Amino acid sequence: MKSKAFILRSRPDGEPQKENFEIQNLELGEPKRKQLLIETVCFTVDPYMRGRMNKSKSYAASFEIGKPLDGGVVGKVLKSEHPNFKEGDLVASESGGWRTHALVEGDQCRRVDTDNFEPSDYLGAAGMPGITAYAGLFYVGRPVAGETVMVSAASGAVGSLVCQFAKLSGCRVIGSAGSDKKVTYLKDKLGVEAAFNYKKVDSVDKAFADHAPDGIDIYWDNVGGEFLQAALSHMNVRGRIASCGMISTYNEKTLSPGPSNLVQVIGKRLRMEGFLSFDHFDKYPEYLSKLARWKKSGLVSWETTRVKGFESGADAFLGLFSGENLGKMVVEV
Amino acid sequence: MKSKAFILRSRPDGEPQKENFEIQNLELGEPKRKQLLIETVCFTVDPYMRGRMNKSKSYAASFEIGKPLDGGVVGKVLKSEHPNFKEGDLVASESGGWRTHALVEGDQCRRVDTDNFEPSDYLGAAGMPGITAYAGLFYVGRPVAGETVMVSAASGAVGSLVCQFAKLSGCRVIGSAGSDKKVTYLKDKLGVEAAFNYKKVDSVDKAFADHAPDGIDIYWDNVGGEFLQAALSHMNVRGRIASCGMISTYNEKTLSPGPSNLVQVIGKRLRMEGFLSFDHFDKYPEYLSKLARWKKSGLVSWETTRVKGFESGADAFLGLFSGENLGKMVVEV
Repeated sequence: MKSKAFILRSRPDGEPQKENFEIQNLELGEPKRKQLLIETVCFTVDPYMRGRMNKSKSYAASFEIGKPLDGGVVGKVLKSEHPNFKEGDLVASESGGWRTHALVEGDQCRRVDTDNFEPSDYLGAAGMPGITAYAGLFYVGRPVAGETVMVSAASGAVGSLVCQFAKLSGCRVIGSAGSDKKVTYLKDKLGVEAAFNYKKVDSVDKAFADHAPDGIDIYWDNVGGEFLQAALSHMNVRGRIASCGMISTYNEKTLSPGPSNLVQVIGKRLRMEGFLSFDHFDKYPEYLSKLARWKKSGLVSWETTRVKGFESGADAFLGLFSGENLGKMVVEV
Repeated sequence: MKSKAFILRSRPDGEPQKENFEIQNLELGEPKRKQLLIETVCFTVDPYMRGRMNKSKSYAASFEIGKPLDGGVVGKVLKSEHPNFKEGDLVASESGGWRTHALVEGDQCRRVDTDNFEPSDYLGAAGMPGITAYAGLFYVGRPVAGETVMVSAASGAVGSLVCQFAKLSGCRVIGSAGSDKKVTYLKDKLGVEAAFNYKKVDSVDKAFADHAPDGIDIYWDNVGGEFLQAALSHMNVRGRIASCGMISTYNEKTLSPGPSNLVQVIGKRLRMEGFLSFDHFDKYPEYLSKLARWKKSGLVSWETTRVKGFESGADAFLGLFSGENLGKMVVEV
């Protein structure tokens, strides 16, 4: 079986460019024991993939030059060598993305529940970004009703769920985003108490001060940089910083200095804690049963930005860094 | 009753100078209900007091210009208006230091157990630095046998206890200090597995690499700056950074940038957490009963650097920043 696949042609130097990507044909071979051959329905592009395009060690293995990119995928089973799956089943896998067909390990596939979700949800709210938001907020941030939660990149795949989960927990939620349209979405659709367009404020620090006059109890960091500095200044005593991402730093050619006010961690007894989705995959059953319920009752919703056609994969990825997505960005094949 | 007291004459601009201090006479008056009048046996000088000499808000109230400094003290009761204490008792108080006599609140005094400790221990191992080391290591760092613990400022009042508590927990301990004499103390007296003089290494980062080839599970931060940057690079997955102090920054006139590799918090799922002794004063009973046992069986020991004479108080404090102390620095009156 042949597959088209996105290959890493060269490592991005700073901001990724289209020329870093190339489409090639791969010969897949036949599925081995417990493997599935799938035809891609949709695949995901995520900010964290930028780190995998560097040579340096990251938590996920580096992509190799001349080799296919990888990531989450939802596909239809064409051939199954796994007893739990049969031809025609829809499955989600954390590996096998960025190509039109893939061999995936059946043991690591989740069955797509089409009664409650759309296939693309398994790349977003019902997938890696969803479990990131759920585990990060409830197991790391640990919100308590009445607290103030500040969410950066609040209209993205992860941020938009964090906002809603925090509201469900009785918290006051403040979100930041990079366009007026996104700010409107946060206020009107997600019902956050306050939101601002960080590109239009005098300073992020002042925006934090204006919107969180009583301080911040949980800061959800998707961004790093100036946002983290402002958060440290405005955190309340015993606040928690849930370190999910630092997208502001991902394209840096040389690392920028960190916050100059990190000493606040001591006086305010802050807890700053990082986490990764894959440490929390055991929580999928509890999470998806809640998510289905919340969705049905209208308590949680999400947006999907769909880019059509396999060939648009690289453009979709580049769009993440210019903020073109509302909610989850997926490529539909 | 008259008392001599150290007054904050002016706020230090950067490194504190002797001219920032002045000795004046205070009229104390008589103890009110539940108060004690004490005669100082010894008082403490601690690095955290530097922050209180700034005008800016810190976790402890700022010292006021023209007003006495304050801090921990051990004193002999001259007059008691508190039912639990009588004339001649030895008591320790977190407030009332930097003077020859003081009125202190009996409710906030601890009785000095002279069977197990020396009076000055209540300013060190049996006092604030001790509870800081105990609560910070066991309740924040949470060591597990077999882990590697890296302690900065390891020969100080807090650090030297952290080293020993970590060893008691079955951990491999690496300490840094600012003189060869202190390094010898760490190795020969405290029995740490490795120690280095940070003033003599090519770079702190390289020293961390050399002495912790298998990475660091707990980094005890007394220092901040270059040490924190190096620690972030060498932490193991799920490592903990116990943020106790950042003495390298206390005398800065403008804040230095933070570590440029803070993004490591995410990929390595690090927890960086600050804490203050006074949140953990409820643990004194459990701690002191253990400490007395450990001392008796020779498992834990400590050094005290004694500066003689009330008038030497300012010099003793200044000495903290040039690293003149081994263990706890106290002023004996």
